[in-house]
Amino acid sequence: MFELKMVKGSTLQGVLEAILDLVNVANVDCSSEGFSLQALDTEHVVFLSLFFPSEAFQSYRCDEDRSMGIAIADMVDFLRSSNDGDIITIKATDQNLEDITITLESPDKIKTMAIDLRLVDATSQCLKIPDWNDMESDYQAIFCMPSEEFRLNCKSLSVIDDDVVISVNEEVISFSTKGESGCVNISHVMNKTDKPEKASVILTHARGPLSLTLNWRYMKSCAKVSKLFDQVKIGLSTKRPLMVECIIAEKGYIRYFVAPLKEEEGRQRKKAKKKRRR
Amino acid sequence: MFELKMVKGSTLQGVLEAILDLVNVANVDCSSEGFSLQALDTEHVVFLSLFFPSEAFQSYRCDEDRSMGIAIADMVDFLRSSNDGDIITIKATDQNLEDITITLESPDKIKTMAIDLRLVDATSQCLKIPDWNDMESDYQAIFCMPSEEFRLNCKSLSVIDDDVVISVNEEVISFSTKGESGCVNISHVMNKTDKPEKASVILTHARGPLSLTLNWRYMKSCAKVSKLFDQVKIGLSTKRPLMVECIIAEKGYIRYFVAPLKEEEGRQRKKAKKKRRR
Amino acid sequence: MFELKMVKGSTLQGVLEAILDLVNVANVDCSSEGFSLQALDTEHVVFLSLFFPSEAFQSYRCDEDRSMGIAIADMVDFLRSSNDGDIITIKATDQNLEDITITLESPDKIKTMAIDLRLVDATSQCLKIPDWNDMESDYQAIFCMPSEEFRLNCKSLSVIDDDVVISVNEEVISFSTKGESGCVNISHVMNKTDKPEKASVILTHARGPLSLTLNWRYMKSCAKVSKLFDQVKIGLSTKRPLMVECIIAEKGYIRYFVAPLKEEEGRQRKKAKKKRRR
Repeated sequence: MFELKMVKGSTLQGVLEAILDLVNVANVDCSSEGFSLQALDTEHVVFLSLFFPSEAFQSYRCDEDRSMGIAIADMVDFLRSSNDGDIITIKATDQNLEDITITLESPDKIKTMAIDLRLVDATSQCLKIPDWNDMESDYQAIFCMPSEEFRLNCKSLSVIDDDVVISVNEEVISFSTKGESGCVNISHVMNKTDKPEKASVILTHARGPLSLTLNWRYMKSCAKVSKLFDQVKIGLSTKRPLMVECIIAEKGYIRYFVAPLKEEEGRQRKKAKKKRRR
Repeated sequence: MFELKMVKGSTLQGVLEAILDLVNVANVDCSSEGFSLQALDTEHVVFLSLFFPSEAFQSYRCDEDRSMGIAIADMVDFLRSSNDGDIITIKATDQNLEDITITLESPDKIKTMAIDLRLVDATSQCLKIPDWNDMESDYQAIFCMPSEEFRLNCKSLSVIDDDVVISVNEEVISFSTKGESGCVNISHVMNKTDKPEKASVILTHARGPLSLTLNWRYMKSCAKVSKLFDQVKIGLSTKRPLMVECIIAEKGYIRYFVAPLKEEEGRQRKKAKKKRRR
Repeated sequence: MFELKMVKGSTLQGVLEAILDLVNVANVDCSSEGFSLQALDTEHVVFLSLFFPSEAFQSYRCDEDRSMGIAIADMVDFLRSSNDGDIITIKATDQNLEDITITLESPDKIKTMAIDLRLVDATSQCLKIPDWNDMESDYQAIFCMPSEEFRLNCKSLSVIDDDVVISVNEEVISFSTKGESGCVNISHVMNKTDKPEKASVILTHARGPLSLTLNWRYMKSCAKVSKLFDQVKIGLSTKRPLMVECIIAEKGYIRYFVAPLKEEEGRQRKKAKKKRRR
């Protein structure tokens, strides 16, 4: 049997809403420690990996490992009709392997809403990526920033709708973009000690200056998820995709890996764009 | 002469806005006791009947019975431009049988807005239905619920966009729907005595268990109207349409009658749907 | 060099947003006293003239007169990404005549955002209109009203989407419109002395009764701008366009001139409309 309980408005609900842009059905792998989900966008640029530990829930039980294909969109729709204070239960029995049942129960137990959601085949979504612990050493720069700042940057950079260059050295991290109508640059001075840590951009480690070019429209879902958390951790590497991470209940995480543009690619895209405009 | 006065934001204004989904022009029958309006949706599934008693207004006068065809949409548009505190007057004289005049007057009397609204021919909308008092005995179950709960149910049930079954026995009232992606069930335990009456679902009378199938999309206007009131009263009958009622100023009411699906009909609709999806 | 500084949320930002309906690129003329901008809508009915005096900004410097073509829409987009408390700097150097640089700096100076906005050719937008001081004597009636009232009138009059007649005598100013579904009239009693001046409609001068017919849809941008100010001043003339003015930092202004319909024109439009409806 699989069963978890949480109260309305929990992080899981928010995360599911935010990843809808990327993924409609997903394969969820449950174990006694928690459950995980991987997804790849249709254009194969963004890879999403999340792990919700059992500690993130009011109660959690998973007797034996199981994998379930879930229609995330339907689940989110139903969870939206929960009320403040409702206890949300998600349950799958060993007898019925075709459905997952979600129950919303009012605190006074007078009202109950339940949905039996048909499980779907989402095995095509199953992916194997290397463990973060194995990859971390490939990241030359890792820094943390308030997620509010991250989101504001995402908004500002979308004014000039083009590729974004992230550059980092030991003092400043900057995001910049250059289009036909002008160019935008956003700079953060890092490791300012006269500010509370949470409000600052903190470089945790850097090996030399580094810069990376991204197609910024793939950052949208990522910006939406960050709203649920106070901080985001960003990793830059010359060998790996850009990594953006938010931490869930200490042991858990949601990580986006976004493939950078090769320099060649960026230049070609720009030329193509110019041609189209003529 | 016909003349009524009310302050901005009154129930009438809210009700007119809410019934716009169903009716654009309507025939209004005025007498010294109040005025009434009947309307039928274009698909002839929902029948709406309302009576506003003279007591619902700051002042009300109707010298002799008259019937007026009113463009509800234009009236609502104009009322939307009223300000807080405005006195709203609706007036029809015996001299001018072509117009109805609506006046908005600021409390300090410095600003006046008036519209002469051309009356329209809405006699095709005139309907005769049996009196509720004659029908009431045909209803095997009648219960009241907080309109907030009613609206939330309407929202939840729309997740799975299909016919809804309302079932009632002496303890529980439940709403359920079954679609291809799963099924939803909402249950309310009734007559819980440890809660304030207003917050509970109260069964006023029931003769045996009963269930009814409805095409839920016809409940939308009804859910919107319920927002203006604290309670809704719902009547179920095997011989009559579902009845949803809100009480206006004690003597008045707005009632929706929604034709249920015959069991045969429901099954056919489902088959047709399945076919279309293939 | 040209450089001005202001804090986020200043009047300039609001005005630029509001005039976007009328103008996308505009020629801005800067002098040591402030800068001005003129624009004409594509249908040549509304003429907009604004002057922002140097006093409207935290700091302002313009070494020598210069004229710059600015993509207002891009500028507004970028300004939208400013945060509360941000210092906004707009700067053009003598070395780089192709760009204007806008910088947003956080109060703690840790975050900086900058855009180099390419200047555009907007000379076709350059217009010469007579000075208001030369025109003022042609206006037979001038009155002030709370901009909130002005906006509400704009909204009410749009219910019946047709030409609006503004009439003024020494006691009452009225706005009225007549369509096929009825007619709307809004009247304000003027110069009521028992109310605070700001809340009243004040006639500053009038030479005889006067009325003017306008195509009301050209008033939209004007109504939007008025939101940023407490009062609007309206001038009526039989020889000149309707004038609506808001005052910026005492010496500055934004003025809309809206060409009235000739009586002949109004009548023809109505006939054409009737024909179309048949």
